[in-house]
Amino acid sequence: MRLGRVLFQGKALSVIFSGEKVLPLAGPIFEEPELKGEELSLDEVKILPPVWPSKIIALGLNYRDHARELNLPLPAEPLIFLKPSSAVIGPEDTILLPPESQRVDYEAELAIVIGKSARRISIEEAMNVVLGFTCFNDVTARDLQQKDAQWTRAKSFDTFAPLGPWVETELDLEKVRVRSYLNGECRQDSSLKELVFSVPEIVSFVSQVMTLYPGDVIATGTPPSIGSLSPGDVIEVEVTGVGRLKNYVARER
Amino acid sequence: MRLGRVLFQGKALSVIFSGEKVLPLAGPIFEEPELKGEELSLDEVKILPPVWPSKIIALGLNYRDHARELNLPLPAEPLIFLKPSSAVIGPEDTILLPPESQRVDYEAELAIVIGKSARRISIEEAMNVVLGFTCFNDVTARDLQQKDAQWTRAKSFDTFAPLGPWVETELDLEKVRVRSYLNGECRQDSSLKELVFSVPEIVSFVSQVMTLYPGDVIATGTPPSIGSLSPGDVIEVEVTGVGRLKNYVARER
Repeated sequence: MRLGRVLFQGKALSVIFSGEKVLPLAGPIFEEPELKGEELSLDEVKILPPVWPSKIIALGLNYRDHARELNLPLPAEPLIFLKPSSAVIGPEDTILLPPESQRVDYEAELAIVIGKSARRISIEEAMNVVLGFTCFNDVTARDLQQKDAQWTRAKSFDTFAPLGPWVETELDLEKVRVRSYLNGECRQDSSLKELVFSVPEIVSFVSQVMTLYPGDVIATGTPPSIGSLSPGDVIEVEVTGVGRLKNYVARER
Repeated sequence: MRLGRVLFQGKALSVIFSGEKVLPLAGPIFEEPELKGEELSLDEVKILPPVWPSKIIALGLNYRDHARELNLPLPAEPLIFLKPSSAVIGPEDTILLPPESQRVDYEAELAIVIGKSARRISIEEAMNVVLGFTCFNDVTARDLQQKDAQWTRAKSFDTFAPLGPWVETELDLEKVRVRSYLNGECRQDSSLKELVFSVPEIVSFVSQVMTLYPGDVIATGTPPSIGSLSPGDVIEVEVTGVGRLKNYVARER
């Protein structure tokens, strides 16, 4: 099932996406889905980010092939950092390149969307609190990341957290590939088999530190071959089985 | 004026604190205050954290005397990091020492509470978007901070963001001292004159990166003489002109 949110006639609705159809829900996507109101079609709505997270946790260096590419040792524990919800944008929205940075990179990622509150859950229980998966772009001002001791500024500019288009609740993680396309050309392409820490391991680890709430997002790290964005670019993140998250790129004025 | 939130008969209320009196408000504390309902007294309510922030931004190394103590150069720009709202607790709540850390420290701080949405505002405009000030304890697992490349895990455990007791909207920053008391004994004591970056400079800087929303919190860094917490301790953060934020300390089970 594909769950998310759309804007229709100025109102935000929680919906099920079914092919070209959009089926409005009575409650938020974390509850048992109950249809309400008239069926809509994709071409009469704007797709919003599927959730407005109370926090976004992201992982550094979580792909073996990415670590090999950078000639870095594999981390012994997940390396986590936070991105603010103020950076979230949805599909077809525009990533703005701030004047403070000379190099802003895309990073295609699989995002875990939390469905139930969770604290200190085991690896075995972890999938029970996951609502599903979506695409995420961990946009990063690479020069500021290298300059600052902490990554926060580099990863927190408004528009630096594209998320969507929807949450796929059934996904065979074994088969998933994570890809990015810059102006239609495939740039990143890896398999979740390359993950250093698996989805259940990540969810369990983060929940040892902080309570997870419905709608919280955990971005699982990026595969090799990240690259930089220029004004006029179109950047897409694809998670096979979920879909594609497409964003435009412009200079911030 | 002292604005905040209390729990009364199982309901959270926005209120004005006036001596021993608690005056319920019709709307959130970011709106023009309009009284509603019966006056309460402090002894019949539990004080909640004054806001539930969409994000908490904190600063590293922002006191000259703290930098001198550590023999570190003053930063050229504010060093920012994020703490998750899941870590927020209120006055009289208990800081839990997680089993993952052997050393958890208190850090007394002045917290700025944002009252209006703001993006890329100047230093001159910055105070216009500030609702007021409260006390903050930037609780930190020092060993994990030193171990991890990023500070996120060390600063994100549940209960690691005590906040309160209220937002003081009129504060003469020139005269403010920031202090901590461990079991009644003064441990930290410094003046805002020691700040490397002033309150307006901090608000303006953060707003260059991310949109600030009403209720967002910016913690302004800690003075010298931080120290560690043990089960059974009582730790208080005092911001003169605001009041004291008192928390208990226990081992997490």
